[in-house]
Order: sequence, then structure tokens, then C-alpha cells
Amino acid sequence: MKTGLLQFRPVLAEPEQNIERVGELLAPLDFDLIVLPELSNSGYFFRSAEELDRSAEDIGGGMFVNSLREIAQRKGSYIVSGVCERSGGRFYNTSVLIHPNGRMDVYRKIHLFDTEKKWFTPGDKPPGVFEVKGSFGNVLIGMMICFDWFFPETARTLALQGAQIICHPSNLVLSYCQKAMYARAVENRVFTVTANRTGTELCGDNSLTFTGQSVMVSPKGEYLISMNEFDEGSALVEIDPQTALDKNVTAGNNLFKDRRSELYKL
Amino acid sequence: MKTGLLQFRPVLAEPEQNIERVGELLAPLDFDLIVLPELSNSGYFFRSAEELDRSAEDIGGGMFVNSLREIAQRKGSYIVSGVCERSGGRFYNTSVLIHPNGRMDVYRKIHLFDTEKKWFTPGDKPPGVFEVKGSFGNVLIGMMICFDWFFPETARTLALQGAQIICHPSNLVLSYCQKAMYARAVENRVFTVTANRTGTELCGDNSLTFTGQSVMVSPKGEYLISMNEFDEGSALVEIDPQTALDKNVTAGNNLFKDRRSELYKL
Repeated sequence: MKTGLLQFRPVLAEPEQNIERVGELLAPLDFDLIVLPELSNSGYFFRSAEELDRSAEDIGGGMFVNSLREIAQRKGSYIVSGVCERSGGRFYNTSVLIHPNGRMDVYRKIHLFDTEKKWFTPGDKPPGVFEVKGSFGNVLIGMMICFDWFFPETARTLALQGAQIICHPSNLVLSYCQKAMYARAVENRVFTVTANRTGTELCGDNSLTFTGQSVMVSPKGEYLISMNEFDEGSALVEIDPQTALDKNVTAGNNLFKDRRSELYKL
Repeated sequence: MKTGLLQFRPVLAEPEQNIERVGELLAPLDFDLIVLPELSNSGYFFRSAEELDRSAEDIGGGMFVNSLREIAQRKGSYIVSGVCERSGGRFYNTSVLIHPNGRMDVYRKIHLFDTEKKWFTPGDKPPGVFEVKGSFGNVLIGMMICFDWFFPETARTLALQGAQIICHPSNLVLSYCQKAMYARAVENRVFTVTANRTGTELCGDNSLTFTGQSVMVSPKGEYLISMNEFDEGSALVEIDPQTALDKNVTAGNNLFKDRRSELYKL
């Protein structure tokens, strides 16, 4: 299963520019599944409610996602992307899994980061898993978004439902995640795909610099993809997602069966 | 608070030799809290039930732990050590927190690794926290043992109860843990002290080589201590354990208050 990620620099509040750039970057690629950064349509550091509103779109009817659907359909491939979503007068930091047949599965970020709380309503549904199919077999996909990684419960919730690949659109500004995804992959024996953005955004006297360094990690902790801090670009690797079904770390230990849920205080 | 760890090579089924060696290594040290490896009295790779029985001791009445109590009392310090425990005809892979006043707090490993399941009864109590006191203030200590690290629920259970320092006696043979403790420390904003053993043990045609490389990690992911793979020795650092009480990663995010327990499926 040819899987990977796209690292790029969305332009704030310019969805048309952003889909154009994504289209350019995806055009030459051949993949089964690719992951794009968080809020790929909108950029991140909104300066006003008007800017947020202008950047957001309804999932299902919006320009950005519909364009991604066309690409997915044309390529016969799956695309995961972060999207700034408008729904019922509210805004969500959302990730969509777009199927080549046009179907879409949606996850709304449940752990909002810092000033995101000012703009977005947090998701109110547990992170779930969704099936994708192809010559690579039937595979369960989970999605989490950026800061969700910090809470081990997020990836665990996905893995315990059977997620083999955790797609992780991100706009990371802290330095922890890329290194910590080692543990997320190993402790759950899953593939993780962290697609981070690059660039700097200004808001008044403040600025945010995104840390790039997108990573894909195997169930055994191998860094299959490690991008640099600045560049736009993509990386794809051939993986066997069925290896993520094997939770046996020794002849005597299964990572899921050995859990002692009755003794955890969570 | 002067805190650290001892890395050494216990001799299989020779508790007297082991306490002698521990005594030598601890004698010159000045510390508030030190962590020793898992099964420091007994070694690890038992060749028979007789060998296990000969190596084990009752907590409270045993030679190895009583000697550690004398050291703790003499130094006015706290010692955490892995101990092969015999109790009511059963054996436990146990960690003790020895206070300078002679008090002992006990944790029995809840996730047994591979062939340990043949010898040991798993603990049936949740990992708990225990208070230590001194010129460094009042500090809550948690204990977990070796393979427990693999389950993020273990450290989480300790941190949510207020653990500021997670003491982690280990006999690691896989290569994951030392790198993954970065995440355990960061995701919980606690200090972690992984005291691993070194050396190789033989059992019939099999052998186990322990990976050393003991590590202590700060709440922000700094590796305060990193031992090498082979050597016996100790390392101590001065820390302020109160920094582990601060769970705010941004002005808008508290790692514990931001948890969405109602949405986790664990």
C-alpha cells in the first residue's frame, strides 16, 4: 500500500490558492493513501472572525474538499486532509478521509490547541475508524489532528478499534510531537502518518512558526519518512498495513490482551 | 531534590552478592532519592523454581530489603528497588519505596513480560502514589516496573493521581523503552527515572542481554541522565519536582483538564 504525506505551506484565508498548490503537488504522485496537513484550506492563525468565515467551508459542498474528491476519483486513491469546516453557524477543526468513490468520513478535533478554542467548537464524537479497500486489501484508518497526539488516549482509542494506520494532519508549533510519535506507533503497533505544515504566520505582534519535519513511523518504531523543517514536498513509502494487526511483542505478550483495564484509573 | 539511578549487573540467584555490590555502589553517594533496577536481589532469567525460591524474600523480613533500609536510614534518603518477592507461597515482581524512617511502600508489577508469566503472579492493585518528604518539600512518587512502560495507561494512572516522579526499575531486553520514555515524561509532564540493568544471563540454550542505557527524563523531555549500554555506575541530578505540578503546555491548555474522558474508548 503506497502511503505517505504532503508537507506544504497553506496561505492564510486563501482556499483557492491552497487547492491550486495542493493540486500541483499531488498531480505527479501515484499513491494509495496520502495525508495533508491540518487546516489545509484555510491556514491557521486567523486575525478575525471574518477571515475564519471566509476560509471555512461546508464539508460536502465546499470548493476545497470537492476538488480533493475529484483528485481522489481521478487517481483512484484515498486522501486525508485537515479542513476548516463551517457547519450550522459553528466552525470545526476537521479531518476528512476522501474515498475514490466520493464517500467522505469525518473527524472533528477533540483537543483544541491554545487560541483554537477562540474560533472552533471541539468535536463531540469519539475518534473512530473507517475502512478503505484496494489491491492492498481492506485496511482500517483512524484520524487524529495535531494536538490530539499529546493525549495518549486518542491514538489508543483508535488502535483499540482496529486502526492500522493513524492519519495525523498537523500544524505543529511545539517541538515534541515528531519525536513522541515513536511511542504512539510502538505502544499501539500501528503506522502513524504525521503531515505537518511549514511556514510562519503573523497575527498582530504575534507570529507562529510551524515546525515541518513531517514523519511516518512504523509499528516497530522505524521512521519511514522524515521531512525537513522548511521545504514543501511529499514522500511515499510502500507498506504492508497488515503488519499492524500483529500486537504480539513476544511469544508471551500481546499488547492489547495484556492490558489490565480493571486496574487503570483513567 | 538530588535524584537519580543506579545501573548494575545483578548476579542470578545470589542475593548476598547483590546486596554487597549495591552497598559498595551506594556507599559514596549523596542523594535524596535513588532508583535501582528490577529484581535487584535475584537477577532475572531463572533456570528452575528452586532458583527462584532461593532468590526471593518476604518484603519486610528479607535480607536484601532490610539492608537497603539500613542504608536509607543511615543516609536519610529514599531508595526504590525492584525485588523478587515471596508472599504466601507466591512470587511477585515487586518494587519497594524505602523511606529513611523504615517505612516501605510496595507495588507489584501488573504487566508481566514473556516468561515472567511462568514464575510470577501479576499484581492485582492499581499503581498508586506515595508521599516522600524532606528539605526538598513534599513530593508524590509513583512506581512502575519495566514492561509496564509499554502500556501508556500505567504512567497515566500514576500521573493522574499526582505522581511527580515515576520511578521505573527495569530489566529491559528490547530496544524501545529508553527512546519512548520521552513520550511518557512529556505526555504526563512528570520526571521519569528508568534504572535498567546490564549484563547477559544464560538459561539452557537461551540467553538474555540487558540493554543498560538507563535514562532520566524531565517533564519537558530533556534527557537528564543517559547511561551507556554496559557499565555499572550511578548518576544523580538536582531537580525541582514541583515543576511536574505544572500541566499547562500553553496559556490555553492544561494537559489534564483538557482530557476528553467521555470520548475515549479504553
